[in-house]
Amino acid sequence: MTDRAQAPVDFRTDPSRYRHWTLEIAGRIATLTMDVREDAGLRPGYELKLNSYDLGVDIELYDAVQRLRFEHPEVAAVVVTSGKERIFCAGANIRMLGQSSHGWKVNFCKFTNETRNAIEEASGESRQVYLCAINGPCAGGGYELALATEWILMADDGNTSVALPEVPLLAVLPGTGGLTRLVDKRRVRRDRADVFCTVEEGVKGRRAVEWGLVDEVVPRSQLEAAARRRADVYVARSDRPSGARGIALTPLARTIDGGRITYRQVTCEVRRDQGLAEITVSGPAEAPPADVVALHRLGDQFWPLALARELDDLILHLRTNEEEIGLWVVRTTGSADLVQAHDRALEDHAGDWLAREIRLYLRRTLKRLDVSSRSIYALIEPGSCFAGTLLELALAADRSYMLDGQREGDARPPATVRLGGPNFGAYPMVNGLSRLASRFLAEPGRVDDLKGRVGEDLDAAAAAEAGLVTVTPDDIDWEDEVRIAIEERVAFSPDALTGMEASLRFGGPETIESKIFARLSAWQNWIFQRPNAVGAKGALQVYGTGQRGEFDRRRA
Amino acid sequence: MTDRAQAPVDFRTDPSRYRHWTLEIAGRIATLTMDVREDAGLRPGYELKLNSYDLGVDIELYDAVQRLRFEHPEVAAVVVTSGKERIFCAGANIRMLGQSSHGWKVNFCKFTNETRNAIEEASGESRQVYLCAINGPCAGGGYELALATEWILMADDGNTSVALPEVPLLAVLPGTGGLTRLVDKRRVRRDRADVFCTVEEGVKGRRAVEWGLVDEVVPRSQLEAAARRRADVYVARSDRPSGARGIALTPLARTIDGGRITYRQVTCEVRRDQGLAEITVSGPAEAPPADVVALHRLGDQFWPLALARELDDLILHLRTNEEEIGLWVVRTTGSADLVQAHDRALEDHAGDWLAREIRLYLRRTLKRLDVSSRSIYALIEPGSCFAGTLLELALAADRSYMLDGQREGDARPPATVRLGGPNFGAYPMVNGLSRLASRFLAEPGRVDDLKGRVGEDLDAAAAAEAGLVTVTPDDIDWEDEVRIAIEERVAFSPDALTGMEASLRFGGPETIESKIFARLSAWQNWIFQRPNAVGAKGALQVYGTGQRGEFDRRRA
Repeated sequence: MTDRAQAPVDFRTDPSRYRHWTLEIAGRIATLTMDVREDAGLRPGYELKLNSYDLGVDIELYDAVQRLRFEHPEVAAVVVTSGKERIFCAGANIRMLGQSSHGWKVNFCKFTNETRNAIEEASGESRQVYLCAINGPCAGGGYELALATEWILMADDGNTSVALPEVPLLAVLPGTGGLTRLVDKRRVRRDRADVFCTVEEGVKGRRAVEWGLVDEVVPRSQLEAAARRRADVYVARSDRPSGARGIALTPLARTIDGGRITYRQVTCEVRRDQGLAEITVSGPAEAPPADVVALHRLGDQFWPLALARELDDLILHLRTNEEEIGLWVVRTTGSADLVQAHDRALEDHAGDWLAREIRLYLRRTLKRLDVSSRSIYALIEPGSCFAGTLLELALAADRSYMLDGQREGDARPPATVRLGGPNFGAYPMVNGLSRLASRFLAEPGRVDDLKGRVGEDLDAAAAAEAGLVTVTPDDIDWEDEVRIAIEERVAFSPDALTGMEASLRFGGPETIESKIFARLSAWQNWIFQRPNAVGAKGALQVYGTGQRGEFDRRRA
Repeated sequence: MTDRAQAPVDFRTDPSRYRHWTLEIAGRIATLTMDVREDAGLRPGYELKLNSYDLGVDIELYDAVQRLRFEHPEVAAVVVTSGKERIFCAGANIRMLGQSSHGWKVNFCKFTNETRNAIEEASGESRQVYLCAINGPCAGGGYELALATEWILMADDGNTSVALPEVPLLAVLPGTGGLTRLVDKRRVRRDRADVFCTVEEGVKGRRAVEWGLVDEVVPRSQLEAAARRRADVYVARSDRPSGARGIALTPLARTIDGGRITYRQVTCEVRRDQGLAEITVSGPAEAPPADVVALHRLGDQFWPLALARELDDLILHLRTNEEEIGLWVVRTTGSADLVQAHDRALEDHAGDWLAREIRLYLRRTLKRLDVSSRSIYALIEPGSCFAGTLLELALAADRSYMLDGQREGDARPPATVRLGGPNFGAYPMVNGLSRLASRFLAEPGRVDDLKGRVGEDLDAAAAAEAGLVTVTPDDIDWEDEVRIAIEERVAFSPDALTGMEASLRFGGPETIESKIFARLSAWQNWIFQRPNAVGAKGALQVYGTGQRGEFDRRRA
């Protein structure tokens, strides 16, 4: 697939446009039904048979998961199931993978992983708990979707099984968290996991329960009722407001004009000749709403939510449609006071479901930034607004440059940065630590000290002293220093940078999420590069031709 | 490099044969001096300039680190330094890497990583503490060697710096733990690490201390004295016995006859037509020595130490010289009582330096097994001896088959397995957990329950019930079941198996070691496969030609 020859992928959709999923709400229980249209693949060249999926299918799933949280706050349990009579889901479409470029495969897996992580976050943090009712063969990515839910029910019939057939069938890994979730989430015994992952036909019935692959098997005729019973348990436990009304996620306004991408709070200038994108994020233009009622009334126009949506869409757009843009240069503009006021509003209303959802959405979006395979520089200049939530952009950057003092001919005061409450835990990275804690692994006490400086405007000298910025050139050095840093970065090998950034960004502890993005994805990416999978006679390429893959038998 | 056309690599050496290192002992301080002979590369085609290294250089380092622990128990501090006037170490030899096969590169990095981990283990567990005196430019693998020590001193002159120039210069990663140790061991701030890893010329002087890259800089003329002072600190703190006499690690007897490799306790039949190696480990032939004096007198003939040495050598041999052998089938023979008696002897004398070293060597060897990119099956049959330390081989296996009952025509009693004290913590894996704890992540209480069954002979039913074995066919099913499991395994893609096993073997927590073998190595392996590094115009290939690498700019 020469991705660049295709129309750009648009991640914006809504239920009225879904082709592969239906979302039904009945009281406090939602049902998300996968019923993939074979002929509606995102790209030509493959048919989405057996409820297999491509990026287009997963974009709808992502949208549904997102909307459930904002538009349906009353929903406390979500049942994922299949709308097909004889199949739950066959996983990612193999012909699609076979014809995709390496970058497309990697990016596809990253996005699908993020959506499954979001499903787990909804269950754990938002108390909108997902469960899965498997009503037919459930293989590969299908089972990985089930693994992302909190309770897996499976029909006990001759037809239904769970399987991870990637290794025996395709010579690749289950790439959407499957291996990690088997041993780390469900804690399946490693030797059983080994057997399970090499058995094409999978495991069914009681053995699947005994091995911990599913939680419950029931006769096919009772599957729906059993799922309902389990959902009721989650509903009873949930703290989600049964009487609340959701807010609408209205269509996201975006214009693309040549290299310029414009949203309301976020703009991006793609400079293809230079291999970089200049992203500018604006702080809020006005004070936050006075109370929760007004906040709900603002809905998706409330600045933090608008910011999360726009940044989220931009990251996905750049990742998927601008592969050659290896460096994202991030700037901010606006009023630190107004950012701080918005941060406070979210803190003050932390008990409100919508405020919680907005914080979680910002958290997911910032995580998406962290795991993007792009270099990130933050430029902190006069007029910038790296405060509170927006300071996270600088802390997420691989490095930051802060202009020390004023610019000749620019009357604006010198740049400052400002810590806010959310910098101390509201937005953990995939390693479970805040960006500040990840930054100061050597001196955890420093994070506590910095709490005493919340709200203070730190100029370049103070920010450097506090360890918050990397380099602080003055006006004389700024232009050369930043220009050289950019030119050097875009000249390095994109692959080496990806591996380096993935290794340096996430010091400290590991979590299931960080293991998925590091260990599992890195191995999968390697395998996606190996002739045994993707060579002319590799298993992924010959799948469906009746031939078996031919392998170089050397172990590496 | 067509590795198979070359003579097999022999990992056995001793100081009288070193060409690249000298080992000097002065009282309680050893000095390990790197002085690489340019013309003495392990393979033809490159010169080991600037104290750069290849596998041959690292085999000597490995041997020295090993011998220091057994032959020089009185040594409490080891100073690593360079014997060259103008260079500390330029890292792994780039022309060697450029001409090596993918498998060779990966295997080379794994071995060098294991040696650096062993250096850290010596410092931490054996209290033989390593420090590094950098007396000239120290780049790439040179700095990674320094990072494996507990204290880094650097000469403060115009010539000496530390650097990780892999990304800017070669389009690969520092592959020997560098990135992980930067952020996780030395906890260098991630943005500083980012700058450091992109600056070809590295960092020198005070800044290197300020950033945490080294611990101390001193004028060149004072480097030796400063290293000595620091070593004295470690000597004063060490619990190593100042008056102890070491034991000799005598030449390891090994014969290779066609596919048959024979040591005293270990034999291996390489079946190239079947793609597997059958490894048989024998338990001790006699009772352990009655006391510590007798144990020391036995020296390297003491069964547990002989076992560790032989298994270690076999693993290295198979990894390096038998790349196409993807499955290791492990059997044991002997007396469980005698294994248990030897395990007890090591436990009873836990305070003795030699007993401690033997336990640690077994631990390192079992770790080497865990991180080997080979499938491992354990076969537990009548006459086998999977008890205590030898049971670890079954627990390290991806799966185990245990024959339930007797074999027709075989009067021996049914196979049993036996837990011993060492199974509960003496041999942690790279994730820091015992193999039992890794196995029962879902039920940690089960490990405690099993403590009550130490010494009990568990037949197939009891072992299965206890969760210690995977499959327990009876005599009727055994042959077919094992044959099919073997045939299937060797038919799968070697790469997919490597990624799968690396993902399933190490559930639970992560450590610096596990991060190095998973995250870092997986990324490096991927990069080692990418055209930007290893293609005809890749940076690793064109290095030294005066050309720069040409890169596909797409980020993946």
